[in-house]
Amino acid sequence: MKLYDYLPSGNSYKVRLLMSYLGLQYDHVLLDIHKGETQSEDYKAKNPAGQIPLLELSDGRRIAESNAILYFLARDTPYWPAGHFEQTKALQWMFFEQYKHEPAIAVARFIRMYAADTRADELEKLMPKGRAALDVMEHHLADNLWFAAAGPTVADIALYAYTHVAGDGGFELSDYPNIMAWLDRFSDHPKHILITDLPMG
Amino acid sequence: MKLYDYLPSGNSYKVRLLMSYLGLQYDHVLLDIHKGETQSEDYKAKNPAGQIPLLELSDGRRIAESNAILYFLARDTPYWPAGHFEQTKALQWMFFEQYKHEPAIAVARFIRMYAADTRADELEKLMPKGRAALDVMEHHLADNLWFAAAGPTVADIALYAYTHVAGDGGFELSDYPNIMAWLDRFSDHPKHILITDLPMG
Repeated sequence: MKLYDYLPSGNSYKVRLLMSYLGLQYDHVLLDIHKGETQSEDYKAKNPAGQIPLLELSDGRRIAESNAILYFLARDTPYWPAGHFEQTKALQWMFFEQYKHEPAIAVARFIRMYAADTRADELEKLMPKGRAALDVMEHHLADNLWFAAAGPTVADIALYAYTHVAGDGGFELSDYPNIMAWLDRFSDHPKHILITDLPMG
Repeated sequence: MKLYDYLPSGNSYKVRLLMSYLGLQYDHVLLDIHKGETQSEDYKAKNPAGQIPLLELSDGRRIAESNAILYFLARDTPYWPAGHFEQTKALQWMFFEQYKHEPAIAVARFIRMYAADTRADELEKLMPKGRAALDVMEHHLADNLWFAAAGPTVADIALYAYTHVAGDGGFELSDYPNIMAWLDRFSDHPKHILITDLPMG
């Protein structure tokens, strides 16, 4: 398998995390989104949506969308829950992540890292949206150790990726004690890797 | 089952469509998002994200996120494909729908229907994003009859909901002949219903 990737991307980190947990080997192609490498003709022939991550299988078939890649890799492992309702809850949280969480928290992080001068107005509008997403997570974690099942699943991987770096976007994680405890619980895994870790070849 | 709903919502229409195809009976609770009925304390106790649709099962358990509800209802039917790769592709398109399509096309429609005076600047920025999403669909449909498998699946239902009313958002569907043909193909179903149809009791 080959993963088209950009190292600071939380969406790609989700896939790297699950690959590490499952002990999967893969080739790694680093693209620079700031140089337009995901918008080239060549890359858009691979992924018309022009995004990373993209997983290419050994037979040449390709999968886009980080959370769909998680499903593909996890389906026959404990990271995809066995029960129909728990599977549905895993997807519910992954859709929440892509609709409510990532567009606020990941985009705020991106702006503060790369475009703080030019996109300050946008940043201001994202902060209450990001806090609202964190509130929903904090509320859930008041009564639950994990998001979709009795143990960690693809939903936790998806939500961990940008939550653990929400501070880069200006969010105060210390305001969310249940989230802080869940982040610790999640990262306490023998095969945990950091977002900055390059995968082993 | 009970569906908390708002009739003009494409996200809710997805669920009504699948319920119709599967011949499922359900109770229907109409909420008015313009009166804040999805933001009340009472409703947010049911769905902390404050959104419709929300499906309540007879045992009281609840499922949010339209595409997660589709999975729950479809998993053991032909609308959820049998193959692992096709399942992944269905999810890939559903995540695309919620990340790239709905935030542009559905929001443009909402602004033109309810907030054309106050949110004109935002509308202008959404148009190229919506067209880019339609381009990705048009490209896929050049070589495929459906999005994820040999027949219609939850991915087609998810994408149909806001694509067929993209004209309300100011998008020219006649610029997309493959999409137009797919819309016709999709709606040619004996149990098809319109977005304005109230479900049978």
